[in-house]
Amino acid sequence: MVGGGRGAFIGAVHRHAAALDGLIELVCGAFSSSPEKSIASGDDLMLSPDRCYGTYEEMFEKEKNREDGMDIVAIVTPNHMHFAPAKMALENGFHVVCDKPVTFSLEEAEELKKIVEETGLLFALTHNYTGYPMIKHAKYLINEGKIGKIRKVVVEYQQGWLSYSEEKSGENKQANWRTDPAKSGKAGAVGDIGTHAENLAEYVTGLQISELCADLTAFGEGRVLDDDANMLLRFNNGAKGVLHCSQIANGEQNGLTLRVYGEEGSLHWKQEVPQYLTHKTIGTQQIYQPSVGELSDVANHNTRIPFGHPEGYLEAFANIYKNFATTVSKTMNGETPNEFDLDYPKIEDGIRGMEFIDAVIKSGEDSTWVKM
Amino acid sequence: MVGGGRGAFIGAVHRHAAALDGLIELVCGAFSSSPEKSIASGDDLMLSPDRCYGTYEEMFEKEKNREDGMDIVAIVTPNHMHFAPAKMALENGFHVVCDKPVTFSLEEAEELKKIVEETGLLFALTHNYTGYPMIKHAKYLINEGKIGKIRKVVVEYQQGWLSYSEEKSGENKQANWRTDPAKSGKAGAVGDIGTHAENLAEYVTGLQISELCADLTAFGEGRVLDDDANMLLRFNNGAKGVLHCSQIANGEQNGLTLRVYGEEGSLHWKQEVPQYLTHKTIGTQQIYQPSVGELSDVANHNTRIPFGHPEGYLEAFANIYKNFATTVSKTMNGETPNEFDLDYPKIEDGIRGMEFIDAVIKSGEDSTWVKM
Amino acid sequence: MVGGGRGAFIGAVHRHAAALDGLIELVCGAFSSSPEKSIASGDDLMLSPDRCYGTYEEMFEKEKNREDGMDIVAIVTPNHMHFAPAKMALENGFHVVCDKPVTFSLEEAEELKKIVEETGLLFALTHNYTGYPMIKHAKYLINEGKIGKIRKVVVEYQQGWLSYSEEKSGENKQANWRTDPAKSGKAGAVGDIGTHAENLAEYVTGLQISELCADLTAFGEGRVLDDDANMLLRFNNGAKGVLHCSQIANGEQNGLTLRVYGEEGSLHWKQEVPQYLTHKTIGTQQIYQPSVGELSDVANHNTRIPFGHPEGYLEAFANIYKNFATTVSKTMNGETPNEFDLDYPKIEDGIRGMEFIDAVIKSGEDSTWVKM
Amino acid sequence: MVGGGRGAFIGAVHRHAAALDGLIELVCGAFSSSPEKSIASGDDLMLSPDRCYGTYEEMFEKEKNREDGMDIVAIVTPNHMHFAPAKMALENGFHVVCDKPVTFSLEEAEELKKIVEETGLLFALTHNYTGYPMIKHAKYLINEGKIGKIRKVVVEYQQGWLSYSEEKSGENKQANWRTDPAKSGKAGAVGDIGTHAENLAEYVTGLQISELCADLTAFGEGRVLDDDANMLLRFNNGAKGVLHCSQIANGEQNGLTLRVYGEEGSLHWKQEVPQYLTHKTIGTQQIYQPSVGELSDVANHNTRIPFGHPEGYLEAFANIYKNFATTVSKTMNGETPNEFDLDYPKIEDGIRGMEFIDAVIKSGEDSTWVKM
Repeated sequence: MVGGGRGAFIGAVHRHAAALDGLIELVCGAFSSSPEKSIASGDDLMLSPDRCYGTYEEMFEKEKNREDGMDIVAIVTPNHMHFAPAKMALENGFHVVCDKPVTFSLEEAEELKKIVEETGLLFALTHNYTGYPMIKHAKYLINEGKIGKIRKVVVEYQQGWLSYSEEKSGENKQANWRTDPAKSGKAGAVGDIGTHAENLAEYVTGLQISELCADLTAFGEGRVLDDDANMLLRFNNGAKGVLHCSQIANGEQNGLTLRVYGEEGSLHWKQEVPQYLTHKTIGTQQIYQPSVGELSDVANHNTRIPFGHPEGYLEAFANIYKNFATTVSKTMNGETPNEFDLDYPKIEDGIRGMEFIDAVIKSGEDSTWVKM
Repeated sequence: MVGGGRGAFIGAVHRHAAALDGLIELVCGAFSSSPEKSIASGDDLMLSPDRCYGTYEEMFEKEKNREDGMDIVAIVTPNHMHFAPAKMALENGFHVVCDKPVTFSLEEAEELKKIVEETGLLFALTHNYTGYPMIKHAKYLINEGKIGKIRKVVVEYQQGWLSYSEEKSGENKQANWRTDPAKSGKAGAVGDIGTHAENLAEYVTGLQISELCADLTAFGEGRVLDDDANMLLRFNNGAKGVLHCSQIANGEQNGLTLRVYGEEGSLHWKQEVPQYLTHKTIGTQQIYQPSVGELSDVANHNTRIPFGHPEGYLEAFANIYKNFATTVSKTMNGETPNEFDLDYPKIEDGIRGMEFIDAVIKSGEDSTWVKM
Repeated sequence: MVGGGRGAFIGAVHRHAAALDGLIELVCGAFSSSPEKSIASGDDLMLSPDRCYGTYEEMFEKEKNREDGMDIVAIVTPNHMHFAPAKMALENGFHVVCDKPVTFSLEEAEELKKIVEETGLLFALTHNYTGYPMIKHAKYLINEGKIGKIRKVVVEYQQGWLSYSEEKSGENKQANWRTDPAKSGKAGAVGDIGTHAENLAEYVTGLQISELCADLTAFGEGRVLDDDANMLLRFNNGAKGVLHCSQIANGEQNGLTLRVYGEEGSLHWKQEVPQYLTHKTIGTQQIYQPSVGELSDVANHNTRIPFGHPEGYLEAFANIYKNFATTVSKTMNGETPNEFDLDYPKIEDGIRGMEFIDAVIKSGEDSTWVKM
Repeated sequence: MVGGGRGAFIGAVHRHAAALDGLIELVCGAFSSSPEKSIASGDDLMLSPDRCYGTYEEMFEKEKNREDGMDIVAIVTPNHMHFAPAKMALENGFHVVCDKPVTFSLEEAEELKKIVEETGLLFALTHNYTGYPMIKHAKYLINEGKIGKIRKVVVEYQQGWLSYSEEKSGENKQANWRTDPAKSGKAGAVGDIGTHAENLAEYVTGLQISELCADLTAFGEGRVLDDDANMLLRFNNGAKGVLHCSQIANGEQNGLTLRVYGEEGSLHWKQEVPQYLTHKTIGTQQIYQPSVGELSDVANHNTRIPFGHPEGYLEAFANIYKNFATTVSKTMNGETPNEFDLDYPKIEDGIRGMEFIDAVIKSGEDSTWVKM
């Protein structure tokens, strides 16, 4: 693991998610740029000091020479520190799991794609919200034509945690780097959560956004990067859409929602109660849930426990890890992964996210529609 | 009543709403352009044939000369037939309740405003969704500063009833005229339901939309007017917003929803369960309901029954009538209506709606931001 | 109207409900035992003083001799004052609408039944919760065998308004008489709301409670009548059930809920969001709503407006009045009412309610199962 | 691990739960009474064959002599096979996690309690529903007096999975033993899920059931043990209550719900959306969620991720393991566990559950109130 030391949010999430199914064991980490802090963080996790490193360069060097060295590197650092360790990890023969957005810029993403292709190694991007079983089922239903040709897509990601310029306190590690262009890149909310929304919409519908018109705002006092973004979407099949995301939607927690309207019906999903998927038509309103009734095989594959026992965020995140780990493991054993194993976000999703960021920023600056 | 014969939707709604509180009695009607049909419709309503007219001109003429003639005219015809009867009603000394949008064009609306002012008579526009007690309470909370300065407004109005080009059957009276530019005007969904959304947002927040960027589509085969519209909003205080409405959102019924995010919290309301208003902040989530706890006087004024006994659409519609009827009655008796009585949509709301339609259509055609 | 003067709750509800459909006009009332108060109450309702009476005896006497005298008497007084005016109204040739529970004792109820039969007049009991369209639809589905043979019924009626011994203040008219055995009869919560729950369960399922075991408590300080009651039920088809009601369930508003489990599925309904009826089976969860899809004719008959426009408590109450008024009107005109017209609670429902009260009280006193 | 071979439900749950926090590693198992099957099951879990045993006796013998032998035994067999392995595990020096109900009979439970006390070892019972953070918070609020003295408790556990006599197919391993008195004991639904409900109610309120009256039914054709049970409760502080559970509530999934009404307000919780706890009073309705606002320390201690990222059943189950593992670890290291570590169900909860089963069965047989 690169990053994820004490006090970091997403590192712990990755560790829980990786542990859940017993397929992955945390064996080493460069949790912090200070060797002492790295060792302390590792100690919390019951790792011996000799496998807690002060730099990822050292970790890659040492681990690739161990008999029991790691197979997969998880990169959970801020955005500006994704590319370099990912590149080096691949070049040293490790498979990579990387947090999103994939890199700091589109150029880096495209270079990384080349490296992935050249090394032939495996790369997963943790657009974790696509790991929910009801999201898998929604994709399945759309693919089966159950709601007909898609006409409208509404995807939202509302948060309120940056309502009060938390970055000013200096104590909120995450608020600091998320609002800092040097670490986050050119986009704020759009990069952090807008890319999740974009990825979710494209993943579920199988469509691509072809054009967008965005209005970006930085409401937080003294804030440079957008903390609120509203946009109109046009899709490559003629469908229309709306995407809006915010970090200043005071009172919202992690309000990622998706609605897809087709000619014959619609699907409705909310991340905060992810066990429900509602299918509406003019005459009916049906609720699907994991393990209930005749669900798709892909939804069942991504579910662990019987109906009525809710699985949540960590389980969805773990599905990304589980599918990726199975793909890695089969690949290392010379087996062929099946379509369910291969169902995790890849470098192409990362490229798409960076293109989205570029288009949104340009549209916001010019107050015009921009193709992507 | 002008319009509202057998088979019409909104005429019956007006009658139920007017009857509910026992303040208004239906005494006569020009329900249809055929005298026979008008009499038949009146008979269903227990009116004697001599007060069922074939034209509104005849009705105005006869009723103004009766001792027990009507005081208030309700106009519930399609949009292109609002202006003429409203004008004549006012000129003959009747107060007017008119369905929305107020007229066929902005020019008509402005002329009507002049007539209202010249005659000194009272005019109500049935933007009925502002009649819900929880909407009144939301407006009150915002006005009291409970959510701080407003940053973001999201208002939606999703319907699916035009998913299948119902107008082609020829049997759906409402579908026919709603999709016919000669009867509806230049806007389809935007005129019918978009104006409700616009009115609701401006009413509750006390802000005005200053600029918008719209994307309009007619998905229905052969349809000329928009049946789906998405737009970005900018408000006169710097707030941003999203408004989207649709008549092809298959599976939606009457999905008018409003969310207002301020610096200190947010308010959330859905027309389909109108008895709840949720107030969220970063640390709390409180649900308000009619008659529960320390509600605002204005919410209590617009509520009839104790908590837990849900009031709905007709009661909200009736609140428009009740407040208007009280204002008319007090005015006729030389009393001064209070602020609660005067709380009903007026000709100015109608003008605003027509300006909105014009701006949306222009933005959609030019693919640019348009000021309003 | 007998009762329902200023400050009374249920009288106003009856008036709104009766007015909604324009089938019934309030023409006179004995709103209070003081002629002055009765006239004042009538004045609020735009009735002339000569039709506001100080006693119901006087009202019946005068009204039966008027050309334009009333046809239907609505009795909305406390329980101990139901029997006498109902009896006299029938004996003077008026049809009767009476609030529930029908009388003070089972004996009175049985006598009233005889009078109804002897006079051949019509009698409606306002078990208003059976007026909801989704309740009609639930009854229809069960009758059609959609959930199979019934195995379990759970019906609850939770309120919290008597949590604080409101009767002690002396200012809460309703709290006063509800907690007073001289006015309410032998049961408190059981009589007021338990009978609604009992009636709803038997109406929807078509079954009868054959045996019950009850535990009653008066939690309010100094209170004599039960304010909380829990009971086990056995039905005449072998089904089992639970009924519990409370007036001290602090935080509850008007929490009447019904769940019916059959061999093949179950139905779920909550009065506070009455527009939804959920039908679950092991593999499916479907939500029915008024006017949506292929609803039963009886549900449509009891619905006024299109889907997505919620109707509530007053509309359900009004359905009792509408069906009863149509039955009265057809009967007076020599027409035959149809099954939808005749679908209102009758004297037999009142008898059943009084039998229920007697059984519950006996079971509570003896701590045993009691047959009914 | 004892039990939990291929195809078993609860074994896999225990493994996920134990793995989630990285505090416990699965090192060995007697997954099946056949050594071959045990090895095959272990192979699925990446265990080497030499640590997969055909009997728990062999496992205890071998493991206690290994340097790296296990510390904690998890017993996940059917009820009739809890006592013997638990007893032997304790006598061989292992700490024990045992599934519920704790034993086959009250006598076994009492003997086990003695052994726990004599050995001084630690024992956890997986009444996992008490692991939810919002349940912890409810207990905290009640303890702090936030809803005042408790008056009424309603706890339900509705399932529908035995609606169709699944045990007849012979293929549903769980249905087979759950309906078999030789494996489950004298109670069916009451033993399996009724004890969860009883434990939850007593845990959250801090009260004890003092008396109950039960009505038990076996609806499934040919079924001997109860699959539905309704009961009235009286608590040791004078509060009243209702507990009902079912396995034939067709359409229900895992419907464990709890409502606690106090003099000053009430708390409402549903296992299927466990992230919400609603606190109602006459004037307010507030929703609590993990990590939102000023939550109790104990709720925060049992939460892993920030607000809006739902945790579910496995996380709650894992909290039992986490707290127990921490207690074991601290005890083994000579440290003193704190109150949060010690917050897991113990042998006393098991005794209480067996007393409950005995009282319910007796009450059902005699149709009377029974003290417990």
